[in-house]
This record gives sequence, C-alpha cells and structure tokens, in this order.
Amino acid sequence: MTAGEDPPSPGGRAATLRELGERGLIERVRRRLAPPGGEVLVGIGDDAAAVAWPGDTLLLTTDTLLEDVHFRRATATFREIGAKALAVNLSDIAAMGGEPRFALLALALPPTLSVSQVDEFFAGFGEMATQHGVTLIGGDTCAAPDRIVLTITLVGGVEGDPVRRRGARPGDAILVTGTLGAAAAGLAALERGLVSVPTDLTAAVRRAHQLPTPRVAEGRLIRASGIATAMIDLSDGLSTDLGHIVAESGVSAEVRLAALPISEATRQVARALGADPWTWAVSGGEDYELLFTAAPEHATALAVLVTAETGTPVSVIGEIQPSGAGVRFMDEAGRSLMVGPGFDHFTSCSWNG
Amino acid sequence: MTAGEDPPSPGGRAATLRELGERGLIERVRRRLAPPGGEVLVGIGDDAAAVAWPGDTLLLTTDTLLEDVHFRRATATFREIGAKALAVNLSDIAAMGGEPRFALLALALPPTLSVSQVDEFFAGFGEMATQHGVTLIGGDTCAAPDRIVLTITLVGGVEGDPVRRRGARPGDAILVTGTLGAAAAGLAALERGLVSVPTDLTAAVRRAHQLPTPRVAEGRLIRASGIATAMIDLSDGLSTDLGHIVAESGVSAEVRLAALPISEATRQVARALGADPWTWAVSGGEDYELLFTAAPEHATALAVLVTAETGTPVSVIGEIQPSGAGVRFMDEAGRSLMVGPGFDHFTSCSWNG
Repeated sequence: MTAGEDPPSPGGRAATLRELGERGLIERVRRRLAPPGGEVLVGIGDDAAAVAWPGDTLLLTTDTLLEDVHFRRATATFREIGAKALAVNLSDIAAMGGEPRFALLALALPPTLSVSQVDEFFAGFGEMATQHGVTLIGGDTCAAPDRIVLTITLVGGVEGDPVRRRGARPGDAILVTGTLGAAAAGLAALERGLVSVPTDLTAAVRRAHQLPTPRVAEGRLIRASGIATAMIDLSDGLSTDLGHIVAESGVSAEVRLAALPISEATRQVARALGADPWTWAVSGGEDYELLFTAAPEHATALAVLVTAETGTPVSVIGEIQPSGAGVRFMDEAGRSLMVGPGFDHFTSCSWNG
Repeated sequence: MTAGEDPPSPGGRAATLRELGERGLIERVRRRLAPPGGEVLVGIGDDAAAVAWPGDTLLLTTDTLLEDVHFRRATATFREIGAKALAVNLSDIAAMGGEPRFALLALALPPTLSVSQVDEFFAGFGEMATQHGVTLIGGDTCAAPDRIVLTITLVGGVEGDPVRRRGARPGDAILVTGTLGAAAAGLAALERGLVSVPTDLTAAVRRAHQLPTPRVAEGRLIRASGIATAMIDLSDGLSTDLGHIVAESGVSAEVRLAALPISEATRQVARALGADPWTWAVSGGEDYELLFTAAPEHATALAVLVTAETGTPVSVIGEIQPSGAGVRFMDEAGRSLMVGPGFDHFTSCSWNG
C-alpha cells in the first residue's frame, strides 16, 4: 500500500471514518488539500505548522477538546481544564522549539454553566498564559446544547528553522525531558481511587495528569543549540510518538527500558494498583515531555545544558538505527519486547500535535 | 452600570451564562485576560484580531460551528458545509480589509460518517480556499460522540492598518455591499418549503443561505482606498452589526429603509411566504455582506470604485450621527421605526466576528 491509499477494510475500500482511521484521514487531507512547498515550511503532520512570513517564521497549532472525551468535570476542576487546554497547545509550539505568543479561544458552552465556573476556567487559562508570555487576542463564543467544546489556536514564532519530526539520523541518541508514565499513573489513580499510597505521591501523579507542564523553555533551548535533529512532544505515548519520528525520518529506533525515567511516585502508585509502570511509560499518553534526537557526541552536553538552564532532568533512553523495524524496546538482557501497534483508533487528536 | 460589570439578574449578580449573556461574557474576558496595547493592535471585540509582527500585521480569526446549531445535514450538503465554514471566516478577514492566507481546521467527527461525506466536505472547503488563495496548513482531528464540531482558524495579513469597527464619524455615509435579507429568505424557504415561487428565485435565496460569498476582494479595495472609517461583516444582521459600529465608535446611525438593497428574489419569496422582506434585511443574519462608513464627499466614488473592480453593487443606506440613540430605521415619511434589541441570546458566535 502506498502512502495516501485507502487502507483495507472489510468491504474493500474504507466506507466510514472508523475504518479509514485517523492516519488514513490525515493522509487523505494532506494529499488533497495541502500541497507542500511555497510559503508553507511545515504543513500537516508535525507538531505545529510553520509558514514563512516577512520577519519571523510563524508557528500555528490548534486543538479541540471535547467534554467527556478529553476532560471530565468529575475529575478536573474548571481551573485545571482551562490551564491544561492551553498547556497541550503550548506543548506543540515547544516541540518545534518556538516561542508561543498569541492565543485564540473558541468556546461552545452550555448556558447552564455558572459564571463562577467560567471565571475559574479563565483563571486557569490566564495563569498558564502569563507563565509562558502568551496573550489572548480573540476567539469566539456560542451556546452548546449539552457539553463543553474548547478549541485553542496558538500562534508562535521562531527565528530560524523549527525542529521537525523528520531529521533523525542513524546513530543519533534519543533523549527525553522529565519523567514518563506519571500522567497515566495519575489517570489510573483518579479512575480507580487509591488508599494504600501516601497522599503526596498520589498528588504528584494526579497533577501530572491534570496539569501537565509544557516544556517551552526546554524546547527553545534544544532548538537554539542547533544540535537536535528531530523533536516531538509526548501526547500519545512514547511508543506512538517515537513512531512518528522514525516514520517521518525513515529510520528505526531502539529504546532501553532500564533507561526510561520513571519517578518514584509513579512506581509506588503502580505497585499499589498492581500495574506495570513501564507500560505506562511506553504506552501511556499525555506526559507532554519533549522527545528529541541528537548526534551521540553532543547528546550529553545538550542534556546537561537543558538541565542547567531549566532544572528539568533530561535522559538518554536509546539510539536511532537505520530504516527497519520501527520502534523496539529492549530489556536489560538485550531482548526485544513486543509493543502493540500505534494509537490510531480515531479518538486522539492530531494533525499538528 | 460601567463596562465589564455584571448585568442585573433575577438573583442580583448573574449566576449562569444564560443570565450573563454573550456580551457580558465577552466583556468579562476582555477585562480579565486581554489587556490591550503592546503588540496587540486589535484585541477581543472586532471582526478579527490584529497583532504587530515583523513585516506585515497579522490578522487572526476563529469560529466554531456546531452541527444542529450552525448547520444541519438535512438542509445542507457536506460540500456546502465545508465551503460555508470557511466562508464565514473569510468574511471576518474581509471585514478588516485583509488578505486571507492560511487556514487551520479542527474537526471532531463521528466515526460513523462515510468517507465520501468527508471527501465532499473537503471538496467544498478546498474550492472556497482555492478561490480566495488560502492554503490549509494544519489542524486537528478527533472522534466526536455524536455531532460534528468544526473549528476553523484563519490567518491573514494586511500591509497597513486594518479597518476596525471603531472609527465612524458623525456625517459619514453608511454603505453596504450586495443585497440584504437573502440569507434569511433562503432559511425561511428551506424551513417552510415553497411551492408558489419560481424555482430559480428559490435557488438564489437558498444559495445565499447555504453558500454565502465572502467579500474578500471588496474588503481589500475598501481598505486600500484609505477612505473607509469603519467596517464590519453582516453575520448577525444589519441592526445588530451596525449597532456594533456605533457602540465602538461612540456615535449613532440613521438608516433609510427605502435605501436597503433587497433583491427581487428576496421580495418574491417574502410575498409567497407572507413575510416582510425589510424585517429580513434589518434583522436577518448571515448575509456576510460588508457594512462600512466613509466621509460623505467620498462615499459615491468609493461605491463606484468597488463595483467597477469587483462587479458587486454597493449602496449608500444612511448616515452616521452624533452619539445618542443607537441605530434608527426611518420610513419614507421620515418616521423612526422601532427595532428590537440586539441579538444576544448566547447562541451566536462572536468575539471576533
């Protein structure tokens, strides 16, 4: 099957979106509507789009969040919903190494919402915006029949070339900021409740799920270093998102499970729930850390630089290899473990991001 | 009540969004989150936002369209839905006198949609984009539980100052492109059915409702003339949208009903349905014509210029007057007619546009 063709479906060609899948849909749009080239430096299929503009290159990203799909009032406060909605878009700009600047906010809200709930939402949004130097410049409001729909568009800038998903080369080291699996641990703790884990550990992973920290300063440093060859933010999970880098770069990747940075809180929550923290680190989504690649001789220096400037730990977790078997996860004995296919059941959100 | 205070509500301060209303919500956001000044040339409360960027000024607008609120599969084809979704955003850029450039499309789609329906949507979107030189550069897809949610963000540019809603001066002529009330006539025809009107007339008004023509070239000419003092696109209806110009400009307006451009098709459909075409022209929304003001000595020349360059008729429909009684509609005997209060029942969509 060549890129852009319809995937096989029970009845031959895909008849519904469910059969076509998200990647099928994105390929279809990419092929029909978005010819690359010209002013469009980065089109559909990266963390954010980049277009040439007199002066700086413009970065643009948009995300729709649906109530009961992407967030629930039962498990997040309005303040957290407002902050996280902006954070996930900030993370897309961070993954290009850009500086976020302006936000547009389209809100479809049930008229029965209380004004104080809306105020809380804006307080959370505003705190996240202030923290990252973003100004809300406009948007759109309308009444929604039942559930909240939020769409945030973020405009950023970058002085040189953004860091793309493509660009990883065989031999490059694979690096990641922060820790992995904490958001999945937080979601599990929220969904299943916790009694046997100290409250401060639960609070740490719940916070990772409800209020991720976009790695904006880290992304800008990584780009400005000129050393990174590819970058993406971890929204769908390490396995899937590293899969995007290798697919776009025409390479493969080997990751050492023992090298994955998993926090003590995540490990303890996993123990309490009888869950596997490596599964969360590999397949859990929404960590919003930055995953990037760099030539091996520069990787350690880059990691040290980012940590020195931002306080955020950076770990080398594996190596890019020639085109071949996608993403492989190796245990300490050097055995390759199977990881299921990527996340494509048409419930995630990602043309750009 | 000073701007930004909560409006009165049955229980004192507004408790829900329904009581606060759309304008109340927008004022609240404007006050809390979007301090004007700095790089933000035009913030919340105009057709599009404008920000200073090295090189050209950036124009940005976003709109969410909800199935069964803003469009219905029963009364529009997927091709029309795709085209109209982009058209309403193009109209916002047109109303600033800008050049539309790039689009982002966030789609929440039920997985049960057929691929051919999605293809039709993109065909309509693509035709409208090509017609106005717009490139789709990115977006976002996710599965919606039941109804379609579309959010389009449009990026445009303008070399000098955009034309704002504020700026109308006493004595200025009030002008409008095209004709008024056709979209409302089309909606009425679709909702109530028509038997006694020739098919070609019905088709004309249905098309006005289902596939409005954004006045992009007209808007650019009007701005480039340097003569227009204020401009807005007619999304909520003449009465409401002229109300925005007078409120933002600190003036009032007098409109001559006899001067309103109402097409023969609209008149005949009104006759067939026992409806009043002037009510459609004054209060019907979604005409997506441009409403603008200019010094009286230049108004006719500007109208002639726009028609000569684009073929679109332009009519002088009234005059801006000093601060006072909002928008007044006069009959041929010079009597002022009452028009109900503006459109603010929290179902329209408009921070910017």
